[in-house]
Amino acid sequence: MDYLTEMMDCVRSKHPLVHHITNYVTVNDCANICICSGGSPVMTDEMKDIIDMSSFANAVVLNMGTLNVRTVESMMYAGKIAKDNNVPVIFDPVGAGATRYRNDVAEMIIKKVKPEVIKGNSGEISFLAGIQGGVRGVDAVGKSDVGELISSLAEKLGCIVASTGEVDYVSDGKEVYELKNGDPMQGNVSGTGCMLSSVIGSYVGANGVKKESVISAITAFNVAAEHAAKDCKGPGSFKVGLFDSLFNLRSEDLPKEAKIRRL
Amino acid sequence: MDYLTEMMDCVRSKHPLVHHITNYVTVNDCANICICSGGSPVMTDEMKDIIDMSSFANAVVLNMGTLNVRTVESMMYAGKIAKDNNVPVIFDPVGAGATRYRNDVAEMIIKKVKPEVIKGNSGEISFLAGIQGGVRGVDAVGKSDVGELISSLAEKLGCIVASTGEVDYVSDGKEVYELKNGDPMQGNVSGTGCMLSSVIGSYVGANGVKKESVISAITAFNVAAEHAAKDCKGPGSFKVGLFDSLFNLRSEDLPKEAKIRRL
Amino acid sequence: MDYLTEMMDCVRSKHPLVHHITNYVTVNDCANICICSGGSPVMTDEMKDIIDMSSFANAVVLNMGTLNVRTVESMMYAGKIAKDNNVPVIFDPVGAGATRYRNDVAEMIIKKVKPEVIKGNSGEISFLAGIQGGVRGVDAVGKSDVGELISSLAEKLGCIVASTGEVDYVSDGKEVYELKNGDPMQGNVSGTGCMLSSVIGSYVGANGVKKESVISAITAFNVAAEHAAKDCKGPGSFKVGLFDSLFNLRSEDLPKEAKIRRL
Repeated sequence: MDYLTEMMDCVRSKHPLVHHITNYVTVNDCANICICSGGSPVMTDEMKDIIDMSSFANAVVLNMGTLNVRTVESMMYAGKIAKDNNVPVIFDPVGAGATRYRNDVAEMIIKKVKPEVIKGNSGEISFLAGIQGGVRGVDAVGKSDVGELISSLAEKLGCIVASTGEVDYVSDGKEVYELKNGDPMQGNVSGTGCMLSSVIGSYVGANGVKKESVISAITAFNVAAEHAAKDCKGPGSFKVGLFDSLFNLRSEDLPKEAKIRRL
Repeated sequence: MDYLTEMMDCVRSKHPLVHHITNYVTVNDCANICICSGGSPVMTDEMKDIIDMSSFANAVVLNMGTLNVRTVESMMYAGKIAKDNNVPVIFDPVGAGATRYRNDVAEMIIKKVKPEVIKGNSGEISFLAGIQGGVRGVDAVGKSDVGELISSLAEKLGCIVASTGEVDYVSDGKEVYELKNGDPMQGNVSGTGCMLSSVIGSYVGANGVKKESVISAITAFNVAAEHAAKDCKGPGSFKVGLFDSLFNLRSEDLPKEAKIRRL
Repeated sequence: MDYLTEMMDCVRSKHPLVHHITNYVTVNDCANICICSGGSPVMTDEMKDIIDMSSFANAVVLNMGTLNVRTVESMMYAGKIAKDNNVPVIFDPVGAGATRYRNDVAEMIIKKVKPEVIKGNSGEISFLAGIQGGVRGVDAVGKSDVGELISSLAEKLGCIVASTGEVDYVSDGKEVYELKNGDPMQGNVSGTGCMLSSVIGSYVGANGVKKESVISAITAFNVAAEHAAKDCKGPGSFKVGLFDSLFNLRSEDLPKEAKIRRL
């Protein structure tokens, strides 16, 4: 588990530039958690701006939380520019499974952009797995074992897949890891999922496209959440503490606190 | 006043889905306060997404704080979809009275969407009352008794009207209630009005379109504000505490702390 | 330095209306810091709304942090309406130097809107100085003395220029002031630069277009940051404390804490 320490140190020394096209609900929290993780966030969704921004970023995060026709076009374009410049793309399919438009956009981004990392909650990931398997709808896959599900999705898409929930899972299509850090209070704050995608952006941007980068990002974020939960009085002070805790987390403590298991 | 306890419990057990088309200034606070009230917020303003989202929501909140031509169209459409599916609409006419465009949009939404609940500050509501009475401009009605004003507005429009300020008023066109909870510190935080509309969305979504739902929402929010104001050092810590306080508020305490009077 | 006290008191008694067209990342913090400084923020970027809003505002803040084709048009229009009504314009060229589109927009706003105040970080201001001198690119000017740089930029453009960083500089083209308040923690929070532009909007809106207004705004904000940094545990609690501190700052203490030097 020593890679946890190394990867955290690497983010903090490299300050990777993470270009986000994300939603307007949680964007400020994404920017701030990105900074607290060691990254350097930039947000822009204008086509004329993306051509430069996505080309020199260290990672691009596409989050479809408040997608619209204009920003979906921007995401597709940012994905293309990123690919052309070997910049890894992290995709957060917020709300996939909830509306037909979101389903279509998620499918299109996965097929055409081919993100290096897909991170969603268990419902979203189950839905994507259902699409990929030819079965539309969460019900058909909802009761499957999540570990197997994301492993086969990752293999099929040739990318890293992370599924979050009470327990988190990460797979590169070959191995599956189960991550058990975190606190239920995360469910009481809007955008903790979006924030995690930004942290993954920092870690992948600094450490490269590896399952270890994604595992380290999730573990750092969730350990910070555990620390924040200890001192908080509710969702408001928890969120404030989450920024502080991730900022202050000592990289040498991370391996001791990590709850990571290969399945 | 036992309905206060029951309604708060109901929101917390049903977790109503509250679809927002709201402004980008305060949207994160709206999402978080909606969660802290017991609701489940979702934000989307894309036409292609609304057709599904507004149809299965438990309430739709339309807030014109940062309106633009595209999102006004989205609001009109979300209102129509909501109506077609018996989903109640809460309308917050932010800035009505300040610019001609806002006046026109507010008038259009009221006439065409026919919201179940209209919630604004006293200036906005006075302005709307002026429109409805054929008199444009706040001055003509500013000195009237607010209780009477909102009662006649509610009666004319066939909806529930809430006016907020130092004292809040709620009327369904038959009765008028005066609500005196709250703290002046609310005036030092951007978006407390928007946040209240989201809480009303949760309460109406869970408890139905009744004046009691709106009264309970306002009272819960304002009692939480009183608690937060006690421990805060200024507007920053007050806002953090507001989330914590609403989340922690005990439903059985609400009737004791409520300052509600029928006029 | 007595003007520091007077200007702070003036903002707090006049509550100037500050119309923002700003970015969606930091807009909520801008609104709240504007309130905490004594101002009254309003955000709108719809052309149909701007015609009224920018005409009766006390100051207009244009921030191109998340610029897009639509909002750039809105900024140009708001600038024109402001000029026609003698409303001062504060321009924050976020990201100038980073992409060609941002460079073009910044140049266009400066040439056509002719802002009364330009405030950027040292990189952005250096870039603008490079443009104005006919040399594109930061490198050519990066090693120059910042004081001289902004003085000649301010003189050429006939406006007040402020450059922020470890040390801040303000010039009206005649005199240059060096400001040394502030705390490194400001660099760990997204949007402290945007927030400062909003505070400048409040001070210029209340006190008029003078170098003293800009110096007072920066000093008030940075002294508040010093207070907040003393008690914080990290970037999250620092930001919360920044709102509280600016709100609570005593105007009579400001001259004692100010670190202002004429160069």
